[in-house]
Amino acid sequence: MGSPFVSDVPTAQAVAAWRAACAADGCPDRVDTIRVPVGEAVGRVTAEPVWALRSSPAFDSAGMDGIAVLAAATAGATETTPVLLAVGDFEVVDTGDPLPPGYDAVVMREHVHRTADGQAELRAAVPPYQHVRSIGEDISATELLLPEGHRLRPVDVAACAAAGAVQLAVHRRPLVVIVPTGDEIRPIGTEPAPGEILDTNSLMLAAQAREIGCDAQVTGIVPDDPDLIIAALRDAAITADLVILIAGSSAGRDDYTARVVAAAGTLTVHGVAVRPGHPVVLGTVAGNVATPVLGAPGYPVSAALTFDIFAAPMLAALEGAAPRERPSTTARLARKLASAIGSDDWVRVRLGRVGGDIVATPLPRGAGVLTSLVRADGLLVVPAGLEGHHAGEQVRVELLRGLAEIGRTIVAIGSHDLVLDVAASALRAADPLITLASSNVGSLGGLVALRDGLCHLAGSHLLDPATGEYTLPYVDRLLADGRDIAVIRLVHRDQGLLVAPGNPAGITGIEDLVRPEIRYVNRQRGAGTRVLLDHEMSRLGLDPTQVSGYTREEHTHLAVAAAIAAGRADTGLGILAAARAFGLDFVPVAQEPYDLVLRAELVDDDLLAPLWSLLARPDFRADVEKLGGYSCQETGRRIR
Amino acid sequence: MGSPFVSDVPTAQAVAAWRAACAADGCPDRVDTIRVPVGEAVGRVTAEPVWALRSSPAFDSAGMDGIAVLAAATAGATETTPVLLAVGDFEVVDTGDPLPPGYDAVVMREHVHRTADGQAELRAAVPPYQHVRSIGEDISATELLLPEGHRLRPVDVAACAAAGAVQLAVHRRPLVVIVPTGDEIRPIGTEPAPGEILDTNSLMLAAQAREIGCDAQVTGIVPDDPDLIIAALRDAAITADLVILIAGSSAGRDDYTARVVAAAGTLTVHGVAVRPGHPVVLGTVAGNVATPVLGAPGYPVSAALTFDIFAAPMLAALEGAAPRERPSTTARLARKLASAIGSDDWVRVRLGRVGGDIVATPLPRGAGVLTSLVRADGLLVVPAGLEGHHAGEQVRVELLRGLAEIGRTIVAIGSHDLVLDVAASALRAADPLITLASSNVGSLGGLVALRDGLCHLAGSHLLDPATGEYTLPYVDRLLADGRDIAVIRLVHRDQGLLVAPGNPAGITGIEDLVRPEIRYVNRQRGAGTRVLLDHEMSRLGLDPTQVSGYTREEHTHLAVAAAIAAGRADTGLGILAAARAFGLDFVPVAQEPYDLVLRAELVDDDLLAPLWSLLARPDFRADVEKLGGYSCQETGRRIR
Repeated sequence: MGSPFVSDVPTAQAVAAWRAACAADGCPDRVDTIRVPVGEAVGRVTAEPVWALRSSPAFDSAGMDGIAVLAAATAGATETTPVLLAVGDFEVVDTGDPLPPGYDAVVMREHVHRTADGQAELRAAVPPYQHVRSIGEDISATELLLPEGHRLRPVDVAACAAAGAVQLAVHRRPLVVIVPTGDEIRPIGTEPAPGEILDTNSLMLAAQAREIGCDAQVTGIVPDDPDLIIAALRDAAITADLVILIAGSSAGRDDYTARVVAAAGTLTVHGVAVRPGHPVVLGTVAGNVATPVLGAPGYPVSAALTFDIFAAPMLAALEGAAPRERPSTTARLARKLASAIGSDDWVRVRLGRVGGDIVATPLPRGAGVLTSLVRADGLLVVPAGLEGHHAGEQVRVELLRGLAEIGRTIVAIGSHDLVLDVAASALRAADPLITLASSNVGSLGGLVALRDGLCHLAGSHLLDPATGEYTLPYVDRLLADGRDIAVIRLVHRDQGLLVAPGNPAGITGIEDLVRPEIRYVNRQRGAGTRVLLDHEMSRLGLDPTQVSGYTREEHTHLAVAAAIAAGRADTGLGILAAARAFGLDFVPVAQEPYDLVLRAELVDDDLLAPLWSLLARPDFRADVEKLGGYSCQETGRRIR
Repeated sequence: MGSPFVSDVPTAQAVAAWRAACAADGCPDRVDTIRVPVGEAVGRVTAEPVWALRSSPAFDSAGMDGIAVLAAATAGATETTPVLLAVGDFEVVDTGDPLPPGYDAVVMREHVHRTADGQAELRAAVPPYQHVRSIGEDISATELLLPEGHRLRPVDVAACAAAGAVQLAVHRRPLVVIVPTGDEIRPIGTEPAPGEILDTNSLMLAAQAREIGCDAQVTGIVPDDPDLIIAALRDAAITADLVILIAGSSAGRDDYTARVVAAAGTLTVHGVAVRPGHPVVLGTVAGNVATPVLGAPGYPVSAALTFDIFAAPMLAALEGAAPRERPSTTARLARKLASAIGSDDWVRVRLGRVGGDIVATPLPRGAGVLTSLVRADGLLVVPAGLEGHHAGEQVRVELLRGLAEIGRTIVAIGSHDLVLDVAASALRAADPLITLASSNVGSLGGLVALRDGLCHLAGSHLLDPATGEYTLPYVDRLLADGRDIAVIRLVHRDQGLLVAPGNPAGITGIEDLVRPEIRYVNRQRGAGTRVLLDHEMSRLGLDPTQVSGYTREEHTHLAVAAAIAAGRADTGLGILAAARAFGLDFVPVAQEPYDLVLRAELVDDDLLAPLWSLLARPDFRADVEKLGGYSCQETGRRIR
């Protein structure tokens, strides 16, 4: 991060140092114990062992419907020498009824013949206690029901109540006070000026705290003034069990946080060998009792992971409970993953079940890309000692989504098209168990991913300049055994040059791109739109190196449109829908098919059936054509 | 269950039939959509897709600390021909700062040499957009951020807020109204008379509903009067999205529930091929709009599992979201598990990591044994088509506790002693990550479990009648290669006859047990206490068949004490601590050692270190001796 102060303490060591500093500075070991009614205790942690005050069941009872008898009175009963019990020598009982006094066994209804005069005829002797549910079968008075330090679940409180508890001694919920700082930070709900940033971190951190059973408060946004921040920190520490100070998003702000923490109490750690999250600050705030403080970096992914890695275990310790754990699974890595030696690298991955394997595709790794966490199905930690993993390597992934849900996820890798977004939302609306997850790596990348067994569908609109044909030549070339490949047409769409409203630069076609003043924004190599551009330029005899901005690559149509809308570029090739979305004008260049490529055996798989049904739905086709620039005439047609 | 009406519908078919009936009767497909501030949306499910209203970041910004430059101005800069930028031709920026107008790249601080007069010297040309974080890098305006039907997590709401959302359209939380019924049911907090049962099920079901993000209300307890129950059902259905009617605990009560549901609306299913939970009732309640109703059996384990199997998926569907999923793992089954063909059998298991394997030990299977669910680390479903599993078989287990926590669990199988309970609680209090889980199968069963690699510790107090020696002869006999076995003395304890206060039957020793009027309560075969009894009787030349109640077996000292305290037996052999716990009198018979048997290589394992430390603590020893009948003189001593 360039700071002269920031260090690279290994995570475990940083956590231990923080704990030790808290102990040394006199931070409370545990939050207070309170007594709450059993019904309000769920989710809280026991502060004392729970011993049973009462047995459950509290009485011997019938374990079956039938009659209660004295076992001794049935002695000698056989098929041939039945025993007759007179009225008064037995009692009819239903399951759960207390065993009436004087009886010690139950005979099932099915084994009792009632005579006309009401006697009970038994054709087998029964041992004492047959079909009797004993007092204390579930809980014996005085036994240890739950230890101290147990997070109470619904079954636990029910068992405590059955054992006679009316109140339980639990720890109160730890209070997390979050202090956002930074001159550029604005509250959610305001309209940020350029350079200003909405305070989404406070919202997220408070929600993270509540999600693990804590109370959370957010203070007002504190400007970048050390004295004000120190005062806010001291103020927060009065009530908080943990203070989280959010640094602004600019670099050097963590130095600021570190200096403020040092001034307000003890600075224990500044900089941990973890990415994202490296410039984290750990320490305590002095006061009547000291309070642990976490200085969270301002980048949202850093802030979120910092909570998981540092705050959550600290809060669990304050409650005297084990930290919550994420389940994990083994997955096959979709592509090579490089990682800097020296830091634990928390990589967000998408997961999908493809051909029996769970495949993990790494998502963008920037600390600022919060959507990488939104879209993540799991987290892969590359430990500090490793340089990364090879493609295809089996890796351990912490799950952020259930495996069954992941198994119902259609993984599309390839070119990006808005129709996939519309389909994803419509599929989910129809059946909440279905996810269509698409990663945008361009048409070529998609076909390669399909070849490598990393996805179900590859979205492609690759033009073969030699033949003028779309998709199929590439399938033959890239997917060696092309015979087992199916191609389904998703849509036809218009490609054209996106330009600012009113087309101020007067762009009329591809030939304008070489005008020196025109700033172009391109798509990445392997994108079908890039191939189309190259094809059109070559057809017109134009030289790409003359296009200013040819090397500036964006990965989606929307990102191209956003760049033009923001005035960062004058034009870019893209689809009409993207122009519409940003209120841009559109200079048509070509109409092209957009196809879904897949293994032929998958066409009839249950996983994809909902997608094929959707493509046939008239309302879906209408929604797509409403986007503009799309034709659904061939939607759903299998062209190979 | 003996009811003539109850059927055995397979689970999936029952769920489908219920869904179909709800649709046919006009139950709402989804709960209403409401708009809530982003900060209140966590845990709720999106009712509409969330499209980005704004890009994030909303401006191009510096990706590094350094200076903003115009890339073109750096052309030609090399180590030998540096370029000097005059003040005004660059601007100092920190990471996150908006890129100042007129600049299109950032040079890292480390690569800039500032001259004395403030100019910036560059020794390398930079391409446009170097170290620039683009507008929309995280989120492009108009892109699909989240689909409909997505349960919002903290990162999701933060991303929505960053994308310009202030409010989100979500489904309101489904409301579950719980109607407890039964003449014998009493509210928690009252003192139940014999035959009465506390309403712990309502508490549990409401907590289960809240745990999965629903609202829950519990009505008053409705007596066993069909008209009153029908009225309560109709009343509940006015506001509820799902009504749960809890049958009382006696059998036949489900018929009652079924008839009531049939009268109040549609009875769809009565009886599902699942145990526990078999007599479940599914249907709808008629009204302005119909409402799904679940008739939950009164046995607590049945009620809890019925919620998981039927209510939770229905509530998720009403929210339009995927049901929450439990993680699962593979485990080795500790012992043979028989299961009735024709029903899915939900078996509660304890899990522990023993010698690299996760071992699953089935817990008691009665529908009334709620502690089996409290103590369970996982659920093993034996499907209807299987007769069970062999010992040692690999089975799939749904996890109720995290695997890391399970890995820190000391598994003790064998004889039961209260000192293990005290140790379990003390270990947890000292370190919330440690669990000591003990299963009571008797001393002999414990040694067999140790031999089979199913536990870390076997608690044993087995007397060898031939030698009068404890534990060691059995270790030699059962654990073939006795050399790798260590034995640690836990405690010495008094064994004696537990009798009612004042010893009304005038019992003075073992020889009184053959008196015909004396009702004995015994321990199970393989229990050290049972071996001691047999040894003492044989020594005195007494015949066990003459002891009334010799075949009545309980599995713990406390259960024996409970039976005597309840007047169900006159005496039983057990430890003083159990007598004390129930206020019983105690006739001493013998003092015996209670030992922990383990593999020698485990003695120095990290897992057990906290236990050995605990045994050395004077406060722990004092606590144990305070229980009565214990001596800690040899506690912690390794005797082999």
